[in-house]
Amino acid sequence: MSNATMRAVSCVVGQPLGLHDLPRPEAGPEQILIRVAAAGVNRPDMIQRAGKYPPPPGAPETLGLEVSGWVDALGDGAADAGFKIGDPVIALVPGGGYAEYAIAHKGSVLPVPEPLTMEEAAGLPETVFTVWNNVFDIGRLQPGERLLVHGGASGIGTTAIQLAAAWGATVFVTAGTDDKCRQCEQLGAKRGINYREEDFEAVLNEAGGVDVVLDMVGAPYFAKNLSILNDLGRLVYIAFLHGAKLENADISRIMMKRLTVTGSTLRIRTDAYKAALAAKVRQHVWPMIAEGTFRPVVEEIFDISKADDAHARMDSGGHVGKVILKVAEK
Amino acid sequence: MSNATMRAVSCVVGQPLGLHDLPRPEAGPEQILIRVAAAGVNRPDMIQRAGKYPPPPGAPETLGLEVSGWVDALGDGAADAGFKIGDPVIALVPGGGYAEYAIAHKGSVLPVPEPLTMEEAAGLPETVFTVWNNVFDIGRLQPGERLLVHGGASGIGTTAIQLAAAWGATVFVTAGTDDKCRQCEQLGAKRGINYREEDFEAVLNEAGGVDVVLDMVGAPYFAKNLSILNDLGRLVYIAFLHGAKLENADISRIMMKRLTVTGSTLRIRTDAYKAALAAKVRQHVWPMIAEGTFRPVVEEIFDISKADDAHARMDSGGHVGKVILKVAEK
Repeated sequence: MSNATMRAVSCVVGQPLGLHDLPRPEAGPEQILIRVAAAGVNRPDMIQRAGKYPPPPGAPETLGLEVSGWVDALGDGAADAGFKIGDPVIALVPGGGYAEYAIAHKGSVLPVPEPLTMEEAAGLPETVFTVWNNVFDIGRLQPGERLLVHGGASGIGTTAIQLAAAWGATVFVTAGTDDKCRQCEQLGAKRGINYREEDFEAVLNEAGGVDVVLDMVGAPYFAKNLSILNDLGRLVYIAFLHGAKLENADISRIMMKRLTVTGSTLRIRTDAYKAALAAKVRQHVWPMIAEGTFRPVVEEIFDISKADDAHARMDSGGHVGKVILKVAEK
Repeated sequence: MSNATMRAVSCVVGQPLGLHDLPRPEAGPEQILIRVAAAGVNRPDMIQRAGKYPPPPGAPETLGLEVSGWVDALGDGAADAGFKIGDPVIALVPGGGYAEYAIAHKGSVLPVPEPLTMEEAAGLPETVFTVWNNVFDIGRLQPGERLLVHGGASGIGTTAIQLAAAWGATVFVTAGTDDKCRQCEQLGAKRGINYREEDFEAVLNEAGGVDVVLDMVGAPYFAKNLSILNDLGRLVYIAFLHGAKLENADISRIMMKRLTVTGSTLRIRTDAYKAALAAKVRQHVWPMIAEGTFRPVVEEIFDISKADDAHARMDSGGHVGKVILKVAEK
């Protein structure tokens, strides 16, 4: 390792997020060093910061799962990914995105899609990889089917609405305010359901049910999700913000309607898995961005020195779309 | 309806099963009337008899979900199924199998496969349709994968062992005695686990886990099933003999290993669904029977007048394979 340093956000449980000098990482075999333009803020960052989601073995201790930036160095065997020094890219990173430099496996790097800004692009990897993997690969959403996305105003939600609508599906969402519901409808949802005022189970059973549910709420919604799923429906979990432990869950409902209960996590997957997913994302989603049928929604951009404010913005729950940290202008 | 009658087993909750004269059914459009040679006994018959599994709308009130026999009459539009009067056939029936005559939809009728007896053939439809649908279609078992079948000595179990082994999978089973375990191994299981003496979770985690679990036990096995499933594993429910309500079921385990929890029931499916399933069974399973790689296991054959004894045999739990009611010699 060289003696070069960089500014990066430290992560010590219980302490404010502050910028510190850390050693600048170097690209190992099949890795790409990226000079970071912007980093996306994700809920796992906040859970990790609270000490409840330790990074997997080998990952940086510092926060940040996705970045945009410019290729700064190519490790051995990384040239075949097709990037050269200075290329604008985005990447899913195993950690350490809240920094001036970050390391990505070559398979997790994609070109910045036109016409997005670096800040818009920084919020793509986690949401687009997660939505593609869970809604389309695992959930097998077909054109003409009906999708319910819980948390429709989140980064995942606003992405799922646009991708699924562009795919030819009918999208329903839940959100916590009427204003968020209307914004989701403007993005292409057929109907936003304000869960503080309406019962999504009643609304969707009345509307004829759905074929796929993308859920990050967890246990409290399980029975209602089974209720609204049509025959052969798929319930896909990507998180369990309100509890992972199902109580009194009824197997017979799964059997009667031949439902599938499944889900995934992205961070612990292999580099090869992520590379295969990246290839699918580039094939299917990048053209949607070029055509303007999908544009990531950014709620607010904070300077990297204000990472605490960015987390507070996420915590407030009032946001629509992504919260982004800006690291460098160019 | 003609005035013709037949002998059939009555089903009145709380009373012994007795033979009575009932009107002989007639073949409606797309239906085939079968003169019954033998009928399979299935656990749902016993649950229905206890008043806990009412027949679906339009199904006969009398017991019996599968028969072998001879084509006696073809309803309008049933000739294109390819059978003529007198042909030996088996059929999945919506009910009423414990009788001298039974009605099947033309799509649920298949030829008796050589070299089986009519009594052996009578026990095929429920087990073979259920195993094909759940292990291969829904569970997507691949050659080289590992399958755990709970209740390995049951009709479903002895069928699943043979079909999955012939398919190139490695099969593990649970059963309640050492003797049953050894019989399952003789049918092709790699290892029978006596659940009264061994913990299948410990045995199978030690053995490297499994890819598919076929379960009819239900809630008490849920957490253990998730524990032994490898990444991308599938847990398929076909019954819940010891409870349908999961307590403290952990979504995060599903996500971490990207598991699928699913299942099905056969009886409520459409005629078209059953016809498609019958076509797959004929394509894949009938050749296994012809080659001798699959032969259904019959525990005991009772005369139809002894239906109560047949149910008692099932209730005792000591059986291996199917219990069959014999109705007619030829």
